[in-house]
Amino acid sequence: MKLDFPRYTERFGAVNLSSVQRVYELDSGKSEEYHKTHQTVRKICDEELAETFGKLAIIIPIKSEKLKLLEGVLSGIPHDCLVIIVSNSPRQPVDRFKIECDTLNQFVHFVDRDAIIVQQKDPGLAEAFQELAYKSILEGNRVRDGKAEGMVIGMLIAKMMGKEYVGFIDADNYIPGAVNEYARIFAAGILMSHSPYSMVRISWIYKPKVSQDGFYFAKWGRISEFTNKYLNALISHYTGFGTEIIKTGNAGEHAMSMKLAELLTYSSGFSIEPYELVNIIEEFGGVFPSNYPEIINEGVDILQIETRNPHFHEDKGEQHLKEMLRDSLFCIFSSKLCTQSIKQQILKDLKAGGILTGRKQPHQLNLIQPFKEVNIAEFARIVKERCSTLGMYGSNLSRQMETVTL
Amino acid sequence: MKLDFPRYTERFGAVNLSSVQRVYELDSGKSEEYHKTHQTVRKICDEELAETFGKLAIIIPIKSEKLKLLEGVLSGIPHDCLVIIVSNSPRQPVDRFKIECDTLNQFVHFVDRDAIIVQQKDPGLAEAFQELAYKSILEGNRVRDGKAEGMVIGMLIAKMMGKEYVGFIDADNYIPGAVNEYARIFAAGILMSHSPYSMVRISWIYKPKVSQDGFYFAKWGRISEFTNKYLNALISHYTGFGTEIIKTGNAGEHAMSMKLAELLTYSSGFSIEPYELVNIIEEFGGVFPSNYPEIINEGVDILQIETRNPHFHEDKGEQHLKEMLRDSLFCIFSSKLCTQSIKQQILKDLKAGGILTGRKQPHQLNLIQPFKEVNIAEFARIVKERCSTLGMYGSNLSRQMETVTL
Repeated sequence: MKLDFPRYTERFGAVNLSSVQRVYELDSGKSEEYHKTHQTVRKICDEELAETFGKLAIIIPIKSEKLKLLEGVLSGIPHDCLVIIVSNSPRQPVDRFKIECDTLNQFVHFVDRDAIIVQQKDPGLAEAFQELAYKSILEGNRVRDGKAEGMVIGMLIAKMMGKEYVGFIDADNYIPGAVNEYARIFAAGILMSHSPYSMVRISWIYKPKVSQDGFYFAKWGRISEFTNKYLNALISHYTGFGTEIIKTGNAGEHAMSMKLAELLTYSSGFSIEPYELVNIIEEFGGVFPSNYPEIINEGVDILQIETRNPHFHEDKGEQHLKEMLRDSLFCIFSSKLCTQSIKQQILKDLKAGGILTGRKQPHQLNLIQPFKEVNIAEFARIVKERCSTLGMYGSNLSRQMETVTL
Repeated sequence: MKLDFPRYTERFGAVNLSSVQRVYELDSGKSEEYHKTHQTVRKICDEELAETFGKLAIIIPIKSEKLKLLEGVLSGIPHDCLVIIVSNSPRQPVDRFKIECDTLNQFVHFVDRDAIIVQQKDPGLAEAFQELAYKSILEGNRVRDGKAEGMVIGMLIAKMMGKEYVGFIDADNYIPGAVNEYARIFAAGILMSHSPYSMVRISWIYKPKVSQDGFYFAKWGRISEFTNKYLNALISHYTGFGTEIIKTGNAGEHAMSMKLAELLTYSSGFSIEPYELVNIIEEFGGVFPSNYPEIINEGVDILQIETRNPHFHEDKGEQHLKEMLRDSLFCIFSSKLCTQSIKQQILKDLKAGGILTGRKQPHQLNLIQPFKEVNIAEFARIVKERCSTLGMYGSNLSRQMETVTL
């Protein structure tokens, strides 16, 4: 892979927010020439990528997405990444979760790769969280519904498997080649980061819109425009310089080092992606004292990398977009960094979009606490003992499980 | 990359036509485990692919395709492949060819890869063919218009650059990741072939159709259905067993060993892809005596490999489809293998499709003779001296040119 070095970095306290980097080649070959001279384009060779894939878990949150799409996504994920599927698909009237397990099992049978699947509502999971006093992920006696909750479960499983990095890829992608590029971008960003606390966010080159006339290759999604505007407004307010640095406020596809991931507070539902940025700026931006002074020295690197592949995915409809917009803007609204004037603008946009009516105010966010303090050995023990939906596939993983676990 | 071994092979004289092979993983990782046991799935590691890319030229025939698509296609082609663009884009009123050169030059500036571009109507090319008595590619004092003619020029340039394999990728592809997969499939097929005379044809998993309701993932293109039906009918007639082996009659994306490519006769225009199969069966199928008895011993391997990526490309409209159907069926009709009964069926389909009217008969094919006998050193000398449109980009290629050429 060949891609730009970051050309510009906005520094906000300990947070280093880099401008969008462009990918030039998906496969940069084995020829050695390139490294010899001073370059502004970074060549990342197959060996570097492969080594990073071995430390990376790809988490796929899924909720009734089409199985053909899931299978395509799986085929695009590099073999050496650990696949973790966290499913919130219903088990009745048709057991969708079981069908997902069967699909995964069949796929693994032919490729013999490491893959784990678990159902979000598994009572065993909830018991583990109860016993380990990690209750912010629960609602009653089960794990709360929501994409964020699934992602946190995935991260805990990645941590228990000893992975150093986690990446997220949605299950509704039409293009296996794009999925493969995401994973390569995750690894490239990890390799280019200077801090152990790193995040890589995918910026899509195009989000094609379909009409009867064919395609229109739109540059930005409809939600991202709003989310990015307000995230940039937050930063501009504190630095005193206008900025457009954030282009990936709603990046469903993103990756983090485990060291960073376990320190973050997550917001439930669809606000998880923008809230990660809000939370990082709150924690490490230097406006408020940090809970983690040791990290202030190392810095937090946020890279934004633009794909070569356009983003062809399932159209989830207007209602879904409205919910995404609401959740994205609510989480910015709720930040202790948010000024009165930004709050007013957000309320105006929400009312103009028909999302808030009358005198209603944004609701309280459901926040999931950092999982750093969760006893991971205990978590592994309980999950393996009591999660009846936990499936571990691949000959390597099954063997590893026999020796390491319980 | 991980893909099936061919599960079934139809043997027709010296021609080995394998059933469609399925790709399981785009990137099969560096872990070694897999090779230890007996497998029906072949793992092809990065090193094997990279080595093959070094011997492979990717030829891109282009005629006024959108430059953003060309740039995307370039970004998907593995760095170690030699890119050869043969352009038949107009030079007036806007010099489209020059814009293509500029695009290529800018791209190469950032990635420093080997790339060659030439204009199909360059008088220097025509002079070379005149002097080397390779006149079947000419019409008057220029190279004839047509995709096949561009492809043959590309193959001659690949041969003069010492490449052992050529692959073809159309310039109208929306998905750089799919392009990357094509190149990986070409290399995988080459590595899996047992004969030095090999061809790899791409079968698309889906050809999505766009409507206002979104996508429908059709399994087959509209033309392929007819082309494949009649190619299979030809084979079935001679073997006496019904077959559906051919699924890639119109595969624009395909690759060949130079040893095979230089022996084939090519048909002008859009019939080039199906005619390659017709010509191989005529030459090596054993029904007629072969011009190349030495090859009968080695055999000709034709692999068909199904992508994981769907085929999203520019919709060229109904007229283009009709021309493709006409040319595809004409070239089967014209084969000396074609029986009266198959000819009757083809005429019926052409009339039903409104392509042939009244008592009209299919026109004569324009055939381009094998280029094996073209004196390649002389070709290189003339082309480099007289082709003013020939551009050779990349520091490696420019250096190589200085020492090796003229």
